[in-house]
Amino acid sequence: MTTLNVLQEHGVIAIDGMGGDSAPESVLKGLAEFGSSSYRFIIFGDEKKLKQCLPLLPSDISYEVRHTDVAVTSDMEVISALRTGKQSSMGLAIQSVASGESQAVISSGNTGLYMALAKILLKTIDGIDRPAIASVLPGKNGRMVCLDLGANAECTVKNMVDFAIMGDALARSVFNKEDIKVAVLNIGSEDVKGSRLVKKTSVILKKFLGSYVGFVEGDDLSKGNVDVIVTDGFTGNVALKTIEGTAKYIISELKSSLESSLLAKVGACLALSSLKMLKDKMDPRLYNGAILVGLNGVVVKSHGNSDYVGFANAIRFTTNILNNNIFDGIRGHLEQSQLHCLLDEGVGK
Amino acid sequence: MTTLNVLQEHGVIAIDGMGGDSAPESVLKGLAEFGSSSYRFIIFGDEKKLKQCLPLLPSDISYEVRHTDVAVTSDMEVISALRTGKQSSMGLAIQSVASGESQAVISSGNTGLYMALAKILLKTIDGIDRPAIASVLPGKNGRMVCLDLGANAECTVKNMVDFAIMGDALARSVFNKEDIKVAVLNIGSEDVKGSRLVKKTSVILKKFLGSYVGFVEGDDLSKGNVDVIVTDGFTGNVALKTIEGTAKYIISELKSSLESSLLAKVGACLALSSLKMLKDKMDPRLYNGAILVGLNGVVVKSHGNSDYVGFANAIRFTTNILNNNIFDGIRGHLEQSQLHCLLDEGVGK
Repeated sequence: MTTLNVLQEHGVIAIDGMGGDSAPESVLKGLAEFGSSSYRFIIFGDEKKLKQCLPLLPSDISYEVRHTDVAVTSDMEVISALRTGKQSSMGLAIQSVASGESQAVISSGNTGLYMALAKILLKTIDGIDRPAIASVLPGKNGRMVCLDLGANAECTVKNMVDFAIMGDALARSVFNKEDIKVAVLNIGSEDVKGSRLVKKTSVILKKFLGSYVGFVEGDDLSKGNVDVIVTDGFTGNVALKTIEGTAKYIISELKSSLESSLLAKVGACLALSSLKMLKDKMDPRLYNGAILVGLNGVVVKSHGNSDYVGFANAIRFTTNILNNNIFDGIRGHLEQSQLHCLLDEGVGK
Repeated sequence: MTTLNVLQEHGVIAIDGMGGDSAPESVLKGLAEFGSSSYRFIIFGDEKKLKQCLPLLPSDISYEVRHTDVAVTSDMEVISALRTGKQSSMGLAIQSVASGESQAVISSGNTGLYMALAKILLKTIDGIDRPAIASVLPGKNGRMVCLDLGANAECTVKNMVDFAIMGDALARSVFNKEDIKVAVLNIGSEDVKGSRLVKKTSVILKKFLGSYVGFVEGDDLSKGNVDVIVTDGFTGNVALKTIEGTAKYIISELKSSLESSLLAKVGACLALSSLKMLKDKMDPRLYNGAILVGLNGVVVKSHGNSDYVGFANAIRFTTNILNNNIFDGIRGHLEQSQLHCLLDEGVGK
């Protein structure tokens, strides 16, 4: 157990040191990349393995290591993982938030297990039935909070209304502004278009959520004309992976085009710094960090194959959320929404 | 009424001369771009307006003009459009397939009205409850037939099984090969992942559709590792628009990067022919043409804002389908699927 330095603390962040493909190296290198701050970190994991990477950390980072040799792996069945998981680096890191010792937890481990353990240890916010996975996506005119990106393959109207409330609070916090626009993802912008789920959700949101502006479509996911896009976890997950796949495909086609002739190669060399700017702007590591929102605590998921740059961004994303309390915003809207959901017959079924 | 030339006919295609943003010019210019073939075309629309563009057509294209001054417009209510629509250029073109005079119909008009009129005039294939919108998407390793892209915002398991059967037949026809791989779009590749809808669909398809290979995810929509991707119309429509939006966003970012400095501009000039090759490969007009599949006739939708290049590709797509009968393949699988759907309790609900 090592405490190097305690600055005037803003808060404590629990880190699962063993989660992700290249842990613990990517985790500790990521913490080093994030650099010094007023936050203190508690790193959970195998002390021996962690110690090998500790020299990577600069001396002005305040941290502490807590040993456990229990680990949950991606190929574990959820039930057996839940049995042993509470004593794992992931479970202990969540527990640190549950006990009030830390204000947030970050892990690059398996999403399903992380969600399951976090639900057991932290419970959902009173009034929220199901947590969602929310992330920030880049767009032409700005960034957007999108949720649910895959926690709930099937959703009720009540779930969708909750996602809108949580997205609203999250966007205010992450973008640090008050003038927020919330939209529901649909297959057309007119009121008559789409599934019963989105139509009913829209009717209720119009009644009480001042920031709600109506429907958007799939191509709006890259425009950034609204701040929050609400969708069920099935559609959201497909859309997110479709964005990633399309981007990868176009970039690889661009690469082969620029390698297809000597002239193109020379041209690409001349345009190199501009092309690098584009690559940097599109770097998915910049947008690493999703929040499992709806729980009693800030639970951040870093991508399983993210490297240290990605992990550093997941820490930045976390501190950004901690700097502005999202829970008051969520609780403030919940009462009104519950009233409207109750008044609307059949909602939540 | 003009008949210029009758070659040895392969078939007759009915064309809605007035559908789309820049009709009839884009339609007739598109027909000219498509060029001579063994097909004959019946063009429905306002004779006066059509005649102004007829000089665009080369003399070796076999066609005929049928006059109507009734038109359905995008801003019409479906009910009033259905009342007058049967006498419109779109309605008469569909009617030409219903009467057996034409083997296929192409329109760039409003999709909702087109689907509604086609359902009334052609009826669905015996055993198919709901037609779907199917289109061919480009991918890294090949093209894929995807359906449903937006006809059905809500789907039953029976609908999804039907889509798989229709996609299988369509892919065999469009790609002209027998070794077809059909997959269902999901949020994970494991059997336990996803919504009840996709899980039940997968169980049934495994029982009788030899070409069924399992689940794929959103990023597979740009890979082309399977030939058919089956999804409900809500997810499919969101995914399609997400692909379009992401591609547009990246291309626009690439453009601004290459204009950001003099050096980049010079580089881009040198790489111009390679960049043009990329642009041509990604040209959405190449993939213009969606089929409203499940009806008693080949009903092809061209994009409302497609120009003549797009319309020519919609005609090519149509002749491709006509060259190989898709209906036998669909009917061949329907009986087996119905048996399995009946055996599986609760299916179709």
